[in-house]
Amino acid sequence: MDPLVGILMGSDSDRPVMDKAHAVLERFGIRFESEVMSAHRKPGRVSEYASGAEERGLRVLIAGAGLAAHLPGVVAAHTTLPVIGVPLYQEALGGADALYSCVQMPPGVPVATVAIGGSKNAAVLAAQILATGDEELRARLRDYKIELSQGLKL
Amino acid sequence: MDPLVGILMGSDSDRPVMDKAHAVLERFGIRFESEVMSAHRKPGRVSEYASGAEERGLRVLIAGAGLAAHLPGVVAAHTTLPVIGVPLYQEALGGADALYSCVQMPPGVPVATVAIGGSKNAAVLAAQILATGDEELRARLRDYKIELSQGLKL
Amino acid sequence: MDPLVGILMGSDSDRPVMDKAHAVLERFGIRFESEVMSAHRKPGRVSEYASGAEERGLRVLIAGAGLAAHLPGVVAAHTTLPVIGVPLYQEALGGADALYSCVQMPPGVPVATVAIGGSKNAAVLAAQILATGDEELRARLRDYKIELSQGLKL
Amino acid sequence: MDPLVGILMGSDSDRPVMDKAHAVLERFGIRFESEVMSAHRKPGRVSEYASGAEERGLRVLIAGAGLAAHLPGVVAAHTTLPVIGVPLYQEALGGADALYSCVQMPPGVPVATVAIGGSKNAAVLAAQILATGDEELRARLRDYKIELSQGLKL
Amino acid sequence: MDPLVGILMGSDSDRPVMDKAHAVLERFGIRFESEVMSAHRKPGRVSEYASGAEERGLRVLIAGAGLAAHLPGVVAAHTTLPVIGVPLYQEALGGADALYSCVQMPPGVPVATVAIGGSKNAAVLAAQILATGDEELRARLRDYKIELSQGLKL
Amino acid sequence: MDPLVGILMGSDSDRPVMDKAHAVLERFGIRFESEVMSAHRKPGRVSEYASGAEERGLRVLIAGAGLAAHLPGVVAAHTTLPVIGVPLYQEALGGADALYSCVQMPPGVPVATVAIGGSKNAAVLAAQILATGDEELRARLRDYKIELSQGLKL
Amino acid sequence: MDPLVGILMGSDSDRPVMDKAHAVLERFGIRFESEVMSAHRKPGRVSEYASGAEERGLRVLIAGAGLAAHLPGVVAAHTTLPVIGVPLYQEALGGADALYSCVQMPPGVPVATVAIGGSKNAAVLAAQILATGDEELRARLRDYKIELSQGLKL
Amino acid sequence: MDPLVGILMGSDSDRPVMDKAHAVLERFGIRFESEVMSAHRKPGRVSEYASGAEERGLRVLIAGAGLAAHLPGVVAAHTTLPVIGVPLYQEALGGADALYSCVQMPPGVPVATVAIGGSKNAAVLAAQILATGDEELRARLRDYKIELSQGLKL
Repeated sequence: MDPLVGILMGSDSDRPVMDKAHAVLERFGIRFESEVMSAHRKPGRVSEYASGAEERGLRVLIAGAGLAAHLPGVVAAHTTLPVIGVPLYQEALGGADALYSCVQMPPGVPVATVAIGGSKNAAVLAAQILATGDEELRARLRDYKIELSQGLKL
Repeated sequence: MDPLVGILMGSDSDRPVMDKAHAVLERFGIRFESEVMSAHRKPGRVSEYASGAEERGLRVLIAGAGLAAHLPGVVAAHTTLPVIGVPLYQEALGGADALYSCVQMPPGVPVATVAIGGSKNAAVLAAQILATGDEELRARLRDYKIELSQGLKL
Repeated sequence: MDPLVGILMGSDSDRPVMDKAHAVLERFGIRFESEVMSAHRKPGRVSEYASGAEERGLRVLIAGAGLAAHLPGVVAAHTTLPVIGVPLYQEALGGADALYSCVQMPPGVPVATVAIGGSKNAAVLAAQILATGDEELRARLRDYKIELSQGLKL
Repeated sequence: MDPLVGILMGSDSDRPVMDKAHAVLERFGIRFESEVMSAHRKPGRVSEYASGAEERGLRVLIAGAGLAAHLPGVVAAHTTLPVIGVPLYQEALGGADALYSCVQMPPGVPVATVAIGGSKNAAVLAAQILATGDEELRARLRDYKIELSQGLKL
Repeated sequence: MDPLVGILMGSDSDRPVMDKAHAVLERFGIRFESEVMSAHRKPGRVSEYASGAEERGLRVLIAGAGLAAHLPGVVAAHTTLPVIGVPLYQEALGGADALYSCVQMPPGVPVATVAIGGSKNAAVLAAQILATGDEELRARLRDYKIELSQGLKL
Repeated sequence: MDPLVGILMGSDSDRPVMDKAHAVLERFGIRFESEVMSAHRKPGRVSEYASGAEERGLRVLIAGAGLAAHLPGVVAAHTTLPVIGVPLYQEALGGADALYSCVQMPPGVPVATVAIGGSKNAAVLAAQILATGDEELRARLRDYKIELSQGLKL
Repeated sequence: MDPLVGILMGSDSDRPVMDKAHAVLERFGIRFESEVMSAHRKPGRVSEYASGAEERGLRVLIAGAGLAAHLPGVVAAHTTLPVIGVPLYQEALGGADALYSCVQMPPGVPVATVAIGGSKNAAVLAAQILATGDEELRARLRDYKIELSQGLKL
Repeated sequence: MDPLVGILMGSDSDRPVMDKAHAVLERFGIRFESEVMSAHRKPGRVSEYASGAEERGLRVLIAGAGLAAHLPGVVAAHTTLPVIGVPLYQEALGGADALYSCVQMPPGVPVATVAIGGSKNAAVLAAQILATGDEELRARLRDYKIELSQGLKL
């Protein structure tokens, strides 16, 4: 079956952080795909991917990037699917650059930004978003919430 | 019919910014309700509202707050619905306080944060989220995207 | 006898910093208790604890948290006891996120914020607060002040 | 009768913000005094005031200052009473200078810092502190908490 | 004759700042064109413009944007012409968001960033760039430098 | 043959970062020279170098510096050649000091600033600048752009 | 008689702030001169002035500048006289740019930095510096200190 | 003979950074003394030291401190000697706290602030200050300036 969530990241070096989303999505039984594509080095690939994402059956996109972190915003420019932005930490400026570049989007094209390095929460948010139209997933989220309150470490 | 989106804000003084979300939601034909409730002055009301939101039929919550801006996070603690956080500007610290307080949520409880003062984008994001389970709304978002590209001012 | 000070923290990983408060409280002969409870993962436990704290005999609460650091503010929302907030350091944003989230509380619900990682000072402040109604503790604080001036390392 | 709370500020120009504490203290029936004294221009007056405060019957000190904002810390250096710091806003650096100068105190000498410009909350915190040794004041704080939840504007 | 410099901006509201570049370019006799095109609302137009810029005879691109300020980076992704970024001021975050979003580009795709609101300097830089291959323009820049030293207000 | 690009840096300790520009320039077949000269310790050498750069045949200058990072601006004050500034990271202030000191130049004297530590991008930008007057170099940049999109690591 | 203090500023627009130093210097009977000279637009004038300052009898230099604020550092590069830097406020970045550019000087070439907009304190500091070799001036400073403590507004 | 420069620091842990000033002062043949005294733990010692410094023959004071970094300002409050402040780095807030606390002094009581961790420059500045009344020291500074330009590492 086709994936519902697409995970994008700007560079191979973002993998260790971004791949933490996988286990969370798997817990909720959400099919996903993951690809490295730079908004600056492969803009054509990004616009192609984002433009075709809805038709391919994807319902939520997650994009992680550091530094100027344009990837989530560029993806959002080419789709009407909800785009979750994960700003990634770098020593210089402490991640404030990526955070501001993700979150301060102009009117009309939002990026749903989570914490610096917050790829797990991006996955939880993706599940919450998909659950708005999926009662079974809502039930799984309620169970998960209970487990969280019982000490589950995400 | 029951509202699908609940808009919350911490103080009456947040109304001028937060009410800009209304026209956007109306454009997409999304029913909403709006209420002032402080996470710090009426915590019981907030947990009651958030805990019961899903059962009352709400599918997305939007919460705007300034300063320490705990409202979105407190709401998110009590629901599995997606919570969109709108950090609000204050002269001291230039909105960085509200932005950090909204977005830097710990693993397990995300807040989908938009730009400082970005209530319109919160509404667009709410529409995108609801559209993941609603083909007709997806079509309306595609039309809206075209209008944006043709100069529509949000 | 019942504890007078309750120390809360959002996560087990906060223990190494927050437990530095113990020796300070012990020095002043102040009984305390300490518990991990996340404002976001166990909000019910937090509101229950904070709401019942005064009746259980607690007189000061200390809450440490990192990132969005809502715990002190959420505790303060549910009690009229003085709440001391300890913002905890994280590499990204250098602790500014936790500091702003602790200190920028809205009118009506203060959090007495100490330095980033300042759990020892939270304990000293708790002693100073309790001493406002306890002449013997005030005397102990005067002795402690003299020792500080003589080179005591806290 | 003698005042229990001393309110200090570094400059006459701090009066409009700092005097907002008066109505709050009056509501709780707490006697207070208020004086302008700069830590930098009148250091002798500050150390004299702080050193003698406890003996004169004061139980809590509130100190507001902008810029390098040393007043709260200097006061705290000369007393074992709890000192509440109110960082004051200035256009340059947006109040971050005063906030950092108030809150980042070294081990042994805490300043209980409230929000930038948060003089009302300083007064509430002073009441909470005094209430730890005063059951009647605790009752008044419980009433106040209820009024807050009913819409009382501080 | 065809323009050598293309000036882009994300929104009509950027005109008052960005149009200050015109007089500077005119002084140096550099032909230019100017267009509003949002990287987020009209991404197709931006990639089309940037991709075709070199072939149309343009030699330098200037892009101004506020908030997440992706325009300069998106333009740079689609061309090998030098791209000058002008971060634009907004009250919230004081322009730091736009500055970081412009300047913190990843390896391979630089944006030549000037000061916040620095559209005049963007024009001077464009002249300096074009002058690397144009002796006559270099002479004009030397004259201009002398006038600057004699009190010319840019 | 004479070099076209001059690379300057404020201190020997800047070499490891700044020398990353070499391979990039070599790839494009651009002759360069590199010299350590502090704007503060050898101001005469800097003004001599910058003043004579154009006549010696240099066409672009790259200047890297940390801390107050005046070197790029001082160089720009003495030449009409385009000056590319590379702000260098230091632990204290996280590179924000060097970034602000490079980029916030006053009207009339721009510095084309790249990312913190972005010496490779400074070299790419130098190539783009020289290519405005050099069709063969433009062709090489187009090839490079294609390689970037195919996974070339800069 | 020749002036002992030279006051420099980067732009005519800095006059209103920088001229506040005059009355303070006059109070202490210190002869001074004042000139506008941009480190970026008139670098030759600045190096000439700074290089010759000691021989002309000047003993302290005060330099005010905003934005990248190189003037104090460039002056310091050309003299062994003590140089006092006054960072000037601008709306974007709130003066942090000028502060960092003034104060973060590399080893060997200090700038004695005062507060953002602190031209009066620059004058007081100049008096304190000159007084290290002038007993009469030291006496005047002691009187001034007493007046400060009695309420003198600087 | 009596020392001319007094070096103070808030804590033993500041020694490694502050003691770097010694070699610089020795180079210039300037007698100095060095003492640890906390503005917060030993305020009486600090005011005694600062108040008596001039009479004891000291002519310049250097004070280093981290965090809220009140020491330089408190010293300045008690003397008319020039006070040089050295803000010290801490991981949380990256030294911005100490920098702001040192430099943002109110009118009337300047602190001559140098770079974060800039103890060597504090010593150079002390030499420059003393040289305003000492021709021989001025000559030594001119020699030193030449050596700096020849590659002397401070």
